[in-house]
Amino acid sequence: MKYSFLLLFILLSSSIFSQTDEEVVKKIYAQSLTNGKSYDWLNHLSNQIGSRLSGSLGAEKAVVYTKDELDKLGLDKVWLQPVMVPRWIRGSKEFAFIETEPGKTTNVNICALGGSVSTPALGLKASVVEVKNFEELEKLGKENVEGKIVFYNRPMQADLIHTFEAYGGCVNQRYQGALEASKYGAIGVIVRSMNLRLDDLPHTGSMSYGDLPVEKRIPSAAISTNDAELLSAMLKLDNTTKLYFKQSCKQLKDVQSYNVIGEITGSEFPNEYMVVGGHLDSWDLGDGSHDDGAGVVQSMDVLRLLKESGIKPKRSIRVVLFMNEENGLRGGNKYAEISKQKGENHVFALESDSGGFTPRGFSFDCNDASFNQVLSWQPLFKPYLIHYFEKGHSGADVGPLKTESNVLAGLVPDSQRYFDHHHASNDTFDAINKRELELGAATMTSLVYLFDKYGINPISNPEKIKN
Amino acid sequence: MKYSFLLLFILLSSSIFSQTDEEVVKKIYAQSLTNGKSYDWLNHLSNQIGSRLSGSLGAEKAVVYTKDELDKLGLDKVWLQPVMVPRWIRGSKEFAFIETEPGKTTNVNICALGGSVSTPALGLKASVVEVKNFEELEKLGKENVEGKIVFYNRPMQADLIHTFEAYGGCVNQRYQGALEASKYGAIGVIVRSMNLRLDDLPHTGSMSYGDLPVEKRIPSAAISTNDAELLSAMLKLDNTTKLYFKQSCKQLKDVQSYNVIGEITGSEFPNEYMVVGGHLDSWDLGDGSHDDGAGVVQSMDVLRLLKESGIKPKRSIRVVLFMNEENGLRGGNKYAEISKQKGENHVFALESDSGGFTPRGFSFDCNDASFNQVLSWQPLFKPYLIHYFEKGHSGADVGPLKTESNVLAGLVPDSQRYFDHHHASNDTFDAINKRELELGAATMTSLVYLFDKYGINPISNPEKIKN
Repeated sequence: MKYSFLLLFILLSSSIFSQTDEEVVKKIYAQSLTNGKSYDWLNHLSNQIGSRLSGSLGAEKAVVYTKDELDKLGLDKVWLQPVMVPRWIRGSKEFAFIETEPGKTTNVNICALGGSVSTPALGLKASVVEVKNFEELEKLGKENVEGKIVFYNRPMQADLIHTFEAYGGCVNQRYQGALEASKYGAIGVIVRSMNLRLDDLPHTGSMSYGDLPVEKRIPSAAISTNDAELLSAMLKLDNTTKLYFKQSCKQLKDVQSYNVIGEITGSEFPNEYMVVGGHLDSWDLGDGSHDDGAGVVQSMDVLRLLKESGIKPKRSIRVVLFMNEENGLRGGNKYAEISKQKGENHVFALESDSGGFTPRGFSFDCNDASFNQVLSWQPLFKPYLIHYFEKGHSGADVGPLKTESNVLAGLVPDSQRYFDHHHASNDTFDAINKRELELGAATMTSLVYLFDKYGINPISNPEKIKN
Repeated sequence: MKYSFLLLFILLSSSIFSQTDEEVVKKIYAQSLTNGKSYDWLNHLSNQIGSRLSGSLGAEKAVVYTKDELDKLGLDKVWLQPVMVPRWIRGSKEFAFIETEPGKTTNVNICALGGSVSTPALGLKASVVEVKNFEELEKLGKENVEGKIVFYNRPMQADLIHTFEAYGGCVNQRYQGALEASKYGAIGVIVRSMNLRLDDLPHTGSMSYGDLPVEKRIPSAAISTNDAELLSAMLKLDNTTKLYFKQSCKQLKDVQSYNVIGEITGSEFPNEYMVVGGHLDSWDLGDGSHDDGAGVVQSMDVLRLLKESGIKPKRSIRVVLFMNEENGLRGGNKYAEISKQKGENHVFALESDSGGFTPRGFSFDCNDASFNQVLSWQPLFKPYLIHYFEKGHSGADVGPLKTESNVLAGLVPDSQRYFDHHHASNDTFDAINKRELELGAATMTSLVYLFDKYGINPISNPEKIKN
């Protein structure tokens, strides 16, 4: 199977791209590395605006700023697409300590999870039961959990090379931990931060109570990995150890916000749409430089780089800066809903939402014919050290655009450092390297260029192979 | 040509490695990521010892520490190999300013280049001529250069993907700049730091006066990229702008130092040697975490990981921690000299001296048969995102071991951030990511395992393909 794949690749590779393509791709990379705008834009977004949680002032400013910047690019259209978004606020800074006996306390670093309810105004103190997963929780049962704080402490698996896989293996503790614990009468939840590194920073992220009635909802917070280790060690010494925590977050009413959209209208197939995007909102602890300021500015630069490189797309290329990926996906859903209403044919959508580190390639959600088409382009990317072309997840925001025949893709940057910063207060501009960001923008632009030039599924449309 | 290569690859790939190899490689990566020692060792080397310029106390401590740590690993032999090394000291911190008119000055960040002479005790002030290369200098000639400071300001080329190539395109300014400028009567040299980023840190590095008599040697310093831009802009406004600089570095007498060597003696071919190494010395501005603390601890961990993974090498595997790569290469030359004297057959040598970032692959200095052998192993490395297997430079320290039939290799990590830190005060432990370092150690160990198991040149020794 592997060999037949390779043979197919060899057979196709001479016909699917031309020397012109090599030159265009080279020009795109050179433009991005010598004359890119992504880093300057991100500097503004991160350092002048800062965090951009849905419904916040930062999010609103980011909408205005990015629309203004897209306006300056001389695109064919730039507009705001209204979308109602949830508004959750953290309130005053959380506080927590471990208490081994009355008055003997050790402060620990926590942060409320997005969507969580507050603790009582004076905080919450209770004994702690540590579990690694929901099965352990079930085994403990109501008699061991009721009235206690459940501490989920399953670490990310260090020997997985793809750190997103390690994240996927842990994140149910954060997302459903409170819902599960509440079934057994727990009064609060503390979750080990989704971080491969041992450090002092708590990592927030979304959680859900499902259909749980409001009065049954229990507060849920993340604890730093160092403090998770500490709490676990102290519980082993003395299982009557208590934890106190206090948080004053709340869910407010939905507010009006926007997706920001810019378009270069296609010269030959204006009704075939290709989307490139990232999400404008971020969590509130850092400035969201990696998640997902990087994806926003790279996507903006894709359209600029196409123009700067003298490429006139055949298809309509849109940059979509989605609102509310982090805690609702309202922007992604709204964009797909409106597209469907208008009968727009989205043939391709690419998201950058895995950080701004050195790009390694793409992950594709598409049929075999399109995937083979992509594989035939691999040699074009080799000089830029882009080697990862695999089937897999594309991106949360573009996901709702999925059809049987279109191509969804996600940029895959190097992920080793990503979870050091993800949803934490150190997701900041200083953790961004200019060249890495620019290489990502160029890599995205090159893929957009190729799909625009050759179209989708040339293997099922053989006449397109020939050009 | 490319296709026949690929076909060869397909034909070979089923016979050159086995399922066992996949399992062993998996085990090596898991060991490194869950139970690696490289990060702890580097923490000590960087934070407890610090910079390790040849002949310094730090270098001496590093010899003692790494020998002690190798002693603990239960290798078959650990020893110190004496080597005399140059000793250059920086003296008190350098000072420099731009003067547009008497009393109107702007301080700039400089550092003496390694090997440079000092300025006069009160410093040096002169007009400045800016050039981009030696051709421009030659055109200016003695009449425009005599009595002045030559300012080399050719930046690293941003659109080169391989940053080492961009470095190679600039470094003659630093290495030979003083020698060339002195031919035209210049009295000092200022070189733009070899840094792709604009920032305030000057980057040191070696320079040479060649055969220039001592009395003709002129002081040479690096200036930060931001200050290089500033100086250039001020010279454009007013070409009578002067620069003052003061440095008190000097070259002392050679001192005794050591290469640190550990060995696992081969079970079948003890007289075939395979070396893995990095260099113990560093520049003096940071703590040398990337250059080359990373390579040192990764190389040490190769031998430990082989042992931990239950691998008993057929050939003798040596870790060699070379002294004095930065300003003399005495350690690398000494090791090769002694090996030659003893008639040791070095079939393989791998150096890690390109930083501790995410490994991408290897660069090989070897014949085609060996290179094809390596290419046949590519699929084994794919799950670990190791994709770069190209012919090219191996490493400065292992270079002198080159023969017609052996294999020299260099680990190729992601290089985008490397020159942000290279030879500067921010080459420090906080710029190291634990997982990236550990992935490098595992990647090196896997290659050593494969070459040990299959030997060198199985294509010219076909009976070895079969096992």
